[in-house]
Amino acid sequence: MSKPESQDQLKMERIVSLCKRRGFIYPSSEIYGGTGSVWDYGPVGVLLKHNVKQEWWQAVVQRRDDMVGLDAAILMHPRVWEASGHVSGFTDPLVDCLQCKQRFRADDLAGDRCPACGGELTAARPFNLMFKTFMGPVESEAAVTYLRPETCQGIFVNFKNVLTSARKKPPFGIAQIGKSFRNEITTGNFTFRSREFEQYEIEYFVPPEQADQWFDYWVDERLRWYTGLGIAQDHLRLRPHAVDELAHYAARCTDVEYHFPFGWSELEGIANRQDYDLRRHQEASGKDLQYFDEAEKRRYLPHVIEPSGGVDRSVLALLVDAYEAIEGGRGAAGAEVESVLRLHPRLAPIKAAVLPLVKRDGMPDRARAIYDDLKRHWFVEYDEGGSIGRRYRRQDEIGTPFCMTVDSQTMQDGTVTVRDRDSMEQVRVHADKLIEFLRGKLGEG
Amino acid sequence: MSKPESQDQLKMERIVSLCKRRGFIYPSSEIYGGTGSVWDYGPVGVLLKHNVKQEWWQAVVQRRDDMVGLDAAILMHPRVWEASGHVSGFTDPLVDCLQCKQRFRADDLAGDRCPACGGELTAARPFNLMFKTFMGPVESEAAVTYLRPETCQGIFVNFKNVLTSARKKPPFGIAQIGKSFRNEITTGNFTFRSREFEQYEIEYFVPPEQADQWFDYWVDERLRWYTGLGIAQDHLRLRPHAVDELAHYAARCTDVEYHFPFGWSELEGIANRQDYDLRRHQEASGKDLQYFDEAEKRRYLPHVIEPSGGVDRSVLALLVDAYEAIEGGRGAAGAEVESVLRLHPRLAPIKAAVLPLVKRDGMPDRARAIYDDLKRHWFVEYDEGGSIGRRYRRQDEIGTPFCMTVDSQTMQDGTVTVRDRDSMEQVRVHADKLIEFLRGKLGEG
Repeated sequence: MSKPESQDQLKMERIVSLCKRRGFIYPSSEIYGGTGSVWDYGPVGVLLKHNVKQEWWQAVVQRRDDMVGLDAAILMHPRVWEASGHVSGFTDPLVDCLQCKQRFRADDLAGDRCPACGGELTAARPFNLMFKTFMGPVESEAAVTYLRPETCQGIFVNFKNVLTSARKKPPFGIAQIGKSFRNEITTGNFTFRSREFEQYEIEYFVPPEQADQWFDYWVDERLRWYTGLGIAQDHLRLRPHAVDELAHYAARCTDVEYHFPFGWSELEGIANRQDYDLRRHQEASGKDLQYFDEAEKRRYLPHVIEPSGGVDRSVLALLVDAYEAIEGGRGAAGAEVESVLRLHPRLAPIKAAVLPLVKRDGMPDRARAIYDDLKRHWFVEYDEGGSIGRRYRRQDEIGTPFCMTVDSQTMQDGTVTVRDRDSMEQVRVHADKLIEFLRGKLGEG
Repeated sequence: MSKPESQDQLKMERIVSLCKRRGFIYPSSEIYGGTGSVWDYGPVGVLLKHNVKQEWWQAVVQRRDDMVGLDAAILMHPRVWEASGHVSGFTDPLVDCLQCKQRFRADDLAGDRCPACGGELTAARPFNLMFKTFMGPVESEAAVTYLRPETCQGIFVNFKNVLTSARKKPPFGIAQIGKSFRNEITTGNFTFRSREFEQYEIEYFVPPEQADQWFDYWVDERLRWYTGLGIAQDHLRLRPHAVDELAHYAARCTDVEYHFPFGWSELEGIANRQDYDLRRHQEASGKDLQYFDEAEKRRYLPHVIEPSGGVDRSVLALLVDAYEAIEGGRGAAGAEVESVLRLHPRLAPIKAAVLPLVKRDGMPDRARAIYDDLKRHWFVEYDEGGSIGRRYRRQDEIGTPFCMTVDSQTMQDGTVTVRDRDSMEQVRVHADKLIEFLRGKLGEG
């Protein structure tokens, strides 16, 4: 990256650097120069992402009566994307430079000359953002299909199957987490806009006349979920879409936005998709997708409220929100910049580090026994390398909420010091009570 | 499906039917006639699959000192697949019928005439099994990339990054769960061979001279894992590959096979890949991928033991192994065929169902309170519809290990009857002790 121009840019650069150094996020295929638009999650990143997905799944599926899960495949029948409108309409306007042959998104350009070479540009033409591929042994038009650009269509085409097997009735929802793919022309802001990304989506099916009330409900509910993860309230805002920016299928849409260092940007959109998708699939497939309400003797296509969020974006927002760079260091020693990730303990990749103060006097064995005990329940680390201060800093950088140090007093009375990542306060807890202590801190009581 | 020809075929048909009816597995895009080679997991299927992945992740990553996780993207730089040998060598031999134009896998054919129309066939030609797509706005040869046909290459190209950030040294492993895609010509046996599937893979990096001992270790370890999930020992076997069937990169390979109704088939392969992949990527990228052993002052490319399993195959094996059809039913009533899924409680999608015996006398409220309490911890169901016997059968079919019934005695002494799915025995447990009871049964003590 070039020299940072602002505090915000400096912060992003430090986060990107920390992510690679400590194993949160690596550029994909980096040894081949990377792809520039796809990212891999490293050893602690995969745990953070997993924890975020787990929080969502528990909140929106496990703990609710009116929701079931689904895991539909990425490859679907091509007619799905014709019916959904993606084949004809999921496009960006592109222009070509007649001189240097580069392509640009028309709406990214300020003038009418090429930003790379100053050459003349063609008129804008629509470019489909779906990744195209061929299923089966013949590479022909008939075999063309697409990587899904959104997970929700897997829910719509399974609506009747789920209705039958899960015995739910509107209002109820189907929730899903999975990868989607968009051949974006302009990618960037680290993982914020990439070509392969993970979504968590709910399609919540309601009687048509209840759509507005459920829309409002889900906007509140989803905003509350983000603050529940520990994101500062004043870093989040709701942005209702103006009528002229609504997608063609949407009657209303409100975004949950986060204040990233690169500006306010969308984490999740809550849309009232009406009966657009079920109606299109009903027409295209010839299958009756209506719900029959036994009690009211009424047959109808449910309307759909869709809270649709980006897992990678949530992870990035959580990293940004949790990140603090402390100039001069946290200790008395006046070190260089030290980083702390103040992640909610439930989200932290590693829940605790177990550290023998020194590598002698039986402390490593004692620490290992504690570590072996804890790791039956959670991801924990054992670390005996380097000074204790250095080991604390390493754990601060990956957001480990508790460091448990075995010292000479442990060998006498069985207690260890537990250092809190945020306050740096230390308390002594008996080794036998550490599981209970962590359960309490993680709200698993 | 056609009329079953054997008990085995009948069993498979019943399982496929149960999977759709109860929401384990649906054909993808079914309302458009399906794709024939891709499957979706329904409300209980997604939970079962999640539990299987969770068991694996805890066993091979969380509870070990010598393993870290990774989550690499599906789309990678195309040079990855050149270096790995997939662009040139990941092919099946195909023949075309000159008369009806259909394509077949040459090794599926018995004779030299078309099995569909009897026409003349071409000579066999290699067909690449990778799904091809185009990244970026220009659909040209330069933009071609592939959906990964195996997750392991994402591990190999990140080897150095992980080594740096996780501070591990051989012997250590990197574990990953994720989707892979193969454009198989012949798909079938339900989810066993599909074009989109999920893998769990470990790449275990060892000093070259330790490869044989670690190979043996992992073969034992992985077989033990499957029996630990409750799969009957005599339905599993190890099948070492003969020298002439080894892949070109492998020095040894042993499959863990399961006795499916359609025959013994591979769940997982444990291969000694030697330093083939790291060497290829080192040569192709020009990056030094050697490990430097400080203690021994020795620099080397680690050899790799790879236990690589199919999540969908494990799920299918677990369903098959747990499935029992009871002719005449389980009760005294002499009903039709009743099905029970004897899944290990840790794998069962729903851990318990809470049932009011009748819909009056305060039983529904009491049952709901118990249900609300339990679902903070696990996926549980509340069901008040139909006779108690019918509700038991519904839970038996999805493998719910415990049914907790609120009856008139509950209203007096606070105990509920807990019915065991397998033995059908009933014991009374106090409502306040149900969390403890389930924790014990699920081994979460």
